[in-house]
Amino acid sequence: MVKITALETHDVRFPTSRALDGSDAMNPDPDYSAAYVVLRTDSPDGLCGHGLVFTIGRGNDVQTAALAALAPMVVGQSVEAMIADLGSFARRLTGDSQLRWLGPEKGVMHMAIGAVINAAWDMAARHAGKPLWRFIADMTPQQIVSQIDFRYLTDALTPDQALQILRAAEPGKAERIERLLAEGYPAYTTSPGWLGYSDDKLQRLAREAVEEGFRTIKLKVGLSLDDDIRRCRLVRAAVGPDIAVAIDANQRWDVQQAIDWLWPLKEFGLAWIEEPTSPDDVLGHAAIRRGVAPTPVSTGEHTHNRVMFKQLFQAQAVDLVQIDAARVGGVNENLAILLLAAKFGVKVFPHAGGVGLCELVQHLAMADFIAITGKKEDRAIEFVDHLHEHFIDPVTIRAGRYLAPTRPGFSAEMHARSIAEYTFPGGIVWRDLPAAESA
Amino acid sequence: MVKITALETHDVRFPTSRALDGSDAMNPDPDYSAAYVVLRTDSPDGLCGHGLVFTIGRGNDVQTAALAALAPMVVGQSVEAMIADLGSFARRLTGDSQLRWLGPEKGVMHMAIGAVINAAWDMAARHAGKPLWRFIADMTPQQIVSQIDFRYLTDALTPDQALQILRAAEPGKAERIERLLAEGYPAYTTSPGWLGYSDDKLQRLAREAVEEGFRTIKLKVGLSLDDDIRRCRLVRAAVGPDIAVAIDANQRWDVQQAIDWLWPLKEFGLAWIEEPTSPDDVLGHAAIRRGVAPTPVSTGEHTHNRVMFKQLFQAQAVDLVQIDAARVGGVNENLAILLLAAKFGVKVFPHAGGVGLCELVQHLAMADFIAITGKKEDRAIEFVDHLHEHFIDPVTIRAGRYLAPTRPGFSAEMHARSIAEYTFPGGIVWRDLPAAESA
Repeated sequence: MVKITALETHDVRFPTSRALDGSDAMNPDPDYSAAYVVLRTDSPDGLCGHGLVFTIGRGNDVQTAALAALAPMVVGQSVEAMIADLGSFARRLTGDSQLRWLGPEKGVMHMAIGAVINAAWDMAARHAGKPLWRFIADMTPQQIVSQIDFRYLTDALTPDQALQILRAAEPGKAERIERLLAEGYPAYTTSPGWLGYSDDKLQRLAREAVEEGFRTIKLKVGLSLDDDIRRCRLVRAAVGPDIAVAIDANQRWDVQQAIDWLWPLKEFGLAWIEEPTSPDDVLGHAAIRRGVAPTPVSTGEHTHNRVMFKQLFQAQAVDLVQIDAARVGGVNENLAILLLAAKFGVKVFPHAGGVGLCELVQHLAMADFIAITGKKEDRAIEFVDHLHEHFIDPVTIRAGRYLAPTRPGFSAEMHARSIAEYTFPGGIVWRDLPAAESA
Repeated sequence: MVKITALETHDVRFPTSRALDGSDAMNPDPDYSAAYVVLRTDSPDGLCGHGLVFTIGRGNDVQTAALAALAPMVVGQSVEAMIADLGSFARRLTGDSQLRWLGPEKGVMHMAIGAVINAAWDMAARHAGKPLWRFIADMTPQQIVSQIDFRYLTDALTPDQALQILRAAEPGKAERIERLLAEGYPAYTTSPGWLGYSDDKLQRLAREAVEEGFRTIKLKVGLSLDDDIRRCRLVRAAVGPDIAVAIDANQRWDVQQAIDWLWPLKEFGLAWIEEPTSPDDVLGHAAIRRGVAPTPVSTGEHTHNRVMFKQLFQAQAVDLVQIDAARVGGVNENLAILLLAAKFGVKVFPHAGGVGLCELVQHLAMADFIAITGKKEDRAIEFVDHLHEHFIDPVTIRAGRYLAPTRPGFSAEMHARSIAEYTFPGGIVWRDLPAAESA
């Protein structure tokens, strides 16, 4: 029997706060970080699985400790049994009664469980010799349904309803796989729009993004209304009327404040306003959506589990949603969320950026196109162009589109050298920083 | 300047799973635990502050690591400045942009922040020579308002509205303090109703509880409908028609399942059904409440922050709520929740039991009686009679009522010997357990 022999963890941090990359209204100085996990096996071919939780610096040690705490539930387990029934594997971790108390199904412990579940999916896809999107796409509808924990969902989505959605997508699968491989999947970019950037840099980067083929650009907003109006105007002038411009407030406002702030921004024909308020505030998003119509409202990158997504849909609180590959309980919970979105007819624009989030979430969007909704040209995956060089199978963007990865697995694996150099606080990068600048 | 010199942590666990104390439909074998924190100072009189997060076993190490991660934000700070402005102290911890990513405001990191904030309040109350309930009660309305982070609340409660509620409670404060000291505060008991107990034990303990003066008894339900019907009938027979009987499903059901399950239990005239489904499911609770009327619906012990409580009230999803002293962001966030409940006219029946939760939450309920609602005889604090012997200032129950604590502080301090003996895994209690039984 091939067994999992170790759950290995690494606290990896990049000193990104030095360049104001990633600055927004709530996060002025993030150090993009990963609590990184590897499942090792005694397979003669070196089979392993990689996963990560993205954080923005302080607390990455706590997140790493949460990964390590899962070792007793995983080490010694049969790889074959795990791969053959990832649904049961995921439910055993998310359902552990003692660990569940620490959430339930939210925060540090839930994200750690999600990363270990993602590492198991990475291993399963590698073992099958397929990229993860294809590994999911090749499952039968019944196999996909068996991945999902329907607890707390059945008032919005039953296993039978999920099965119907998946069966309806079966015709045309092969043709869609060909199209995906040929065309790629639309991307949108947030790289021009960080709050810390100057007006010149914003306009220059926005123009460059359009020249590179992006059709949607997103700006960070929420610190100063005058700045936001000026920046929206500058970007609109730079990119012309045919490019979609979205804005992201990163949870900055209260409900009425959001409605008031967004009023003068209506003229720019925004594609969506993202995270106007607390990610927990389902009813607040619904009120904002009514108050700022027709501007579409969106949230999701911090939405902590399927129960919250369910309510966003039930309350008609959003026009579209983000999903995040490393916030919820792994691939299994994201499949539930994608099926809920399909049931309610809400488009998904996956959240990415950070460390490895582009690499991960592309697989989920592509699996959705092949096996769930059959749609991709009316939606897009976020793209931010940094830190990809640390990954063994980095995303490939061509003409504003993600090319489908072909290498087996979930694209989560980082270069061993990057892990070593950026390990906090002992890696060479952190040792060489002036003491006053370290976290 | 007196400074905080250390943030000390302890991973303390009690092997309660051996006796099935604390067993319910979702938590079959909890080992009641505390991630325990002490703020030390260089004050010549030994001033310190104690706090804790209650967990049920596995993961208490992660929770303890989260406490330790807060040391750099606290150690070296002025005690005087912290005590003089606990609102700013709390906002600095809950608002840290990097740590916030790990929630935001939920799960392991938020509970750790809450425990450190509670330790700061313990220190402030000790310094003032008052029990915490009295320390709060002696604040002016404006001082209480300044404790609260109103971000994300203003669509339901503004600072001015909070001030009005507090000012309306000012007349009669002195008289209520006298009454509280003379009469105590009503308690209810969950001790008879754990799922692991036999029918005989259930009836015997229920009768004993009534003889001791309790007017409300709570049973755990949700594993078997037949068992629940039988157990409700047995308890009703044991205690007679005048004692309130509540039930607690500990998040066991989906929405429709809850409605169906509760139908045959209506005949027992239940005082409330607690946690029928996911604590995240605001809309689910609202649907259940409509479906099981007139049985009152309740939740709150796992409700992770003020934004979720706000929505429970806005959606008319609950008839009453639990609050928990160690789940949310400390005393400050609980003051916000108590004011929201007062604004919406929803009664609070605080959650207790576990390790130290009775000791802590009594102060909040009593402060509510003196300074916010002025009410106590139409509500009650949960009481479970175990593990109190490990606390220096344990709760005192007389004739089914909590007597008001008089010792300065928040009653969170454990005996040093208990901490040493129950420290996991090195304490003598854990070393002496057979290896197969250790967590």
